Amino acid sequence: MPLRLDRGARLVVATHNPGKARELAQILENRFQLLSAGELGLGEPEETEASFVGNALLKARTAADASGLIALADDSGLSTSALDGAPGIFSARWAGPDKDFGLAMRHLEERVTQSGRDDPSAWFTCALAVAWPNGPAVVVEGRIDGTLTFPPRGERGFGYDPVFTPAGGILTFGEMDPTEKDAISHRARAFAKLKAALF
Amino acid sequence: MPLRLDRGARLVVATHNPGKARELAQILENRFQLLSAGELGLGEPEETEASFVGNALLKARTAADASGLIALADDSGLSTSALDGAPGIFSARWAGPDKDFGLAMRHLEERVTQSGRDDPSAWFTCALAVAWPNGPAVVVEGRIDGTLTFPPRGERGFGYDPVFTPAGGILTFGEMDPTEKDAISHRARAFAKLKAALF
Repeated sequence: MPLRLDRGARLVVATHNPGKARELAQILENRFQLLSAGELGLGEPEETEASFVGNALLKARTAADASGLIALADDSGLSTSALDGAPGIFSARWAGPDKDFGLAMRHLEERVTQSGRDDPSAWFTCALAVAWPNGPAVVVEGRIDGTLTFPPRGERGFGYDPVFTPAGGILTFGEMDPTEKDAISHRARAFAKLKAALF
Repeated sequence: MPLRLDRGARLVVATHNPGKARELAQILENRFQLLSAGELGLGEPEETEASFVGNALLKARTAADASGLIALADDSGLSTSALDGAPGIFSARWAGPDKDFGLAMRHLEERVTQSGRDDPSAWFTCALAVAWPNGPAVVVEGRIDGTLTFPPRGERGFGYDPVFTPAGGILTFGEMDPTEKDAISHRARAFAKLKAALF
């Protein structure tokens, strides 16, 4: 079994986050036949690993083995220097069961202020994993550096996008045109690696 | 960059366990030019992940990025039904800083006896990861089922081999000829998957 993803292949996208699913579909340029984990009635495993790649792998493996199809999973988040990497792999969990990222961004601002550390450095990480049912898996990671921006700005994107300005830029990810964001984002960088390896 | 491991490629083997390094060399049949992490003066990362594949990936990634070479790492261990999977990813840690597997096997026998559960089922898992420097990684997992065998028998193999009898067999891994063990072991099964994917 060669490690290739052929055009038109059926892929389960193991995400229950509509924002991520939309971005993945956009980046994949209709190259594959995408099925969502939700459509297939697949559950979400608990994210027990300590890294983005570990959790992406866990989600892809679970979906591939449950569906018998090749599965693609994403695990991503925002890390900050002031909080020694937090929220990191806990980025989504900071938004609580209601996935309230307004709450998560307020919480982040409070924690950074309380830290007393005057370092606005932050970075988004995206890990992508592709798993074959009962077979191998491939993982890649992409990253973009930038600065925290409070108060949040912009209604586009999702998650922590409104509090992150990529290095050398002026607009936050929440203000940028999706096409511009997709050209430089951590997710785009991870996809470029995945594409080089598998497409 | 195609995900292939060509014959003669230089590979860092990210293990500091001489038993594993020997088995890996045997299984790889002199196909690659193997360098050890020890030879290159690479440190061992803390195994912070919650799964075999997660820890194998972490070790391969760390060695690849530190050396600039393709790295291969193994994470493996013995799981038992009576202890709900323990020692699992903690298999090596049960042997303590002196890597005393005699101690680990006595500890295992005590814990299984104390559990009061009359289920001797056990399985070895081997996760293998190959990481390209600053690039993708491939992971696979192999497993072999069997039964716990106390007291330990056999001087061959390493680790928990003397307390594990593969399903359908009579000899423990510690009693088997290395060639026989390598034909059926969890490590051999993981390698068969890796080979199908990358060689």
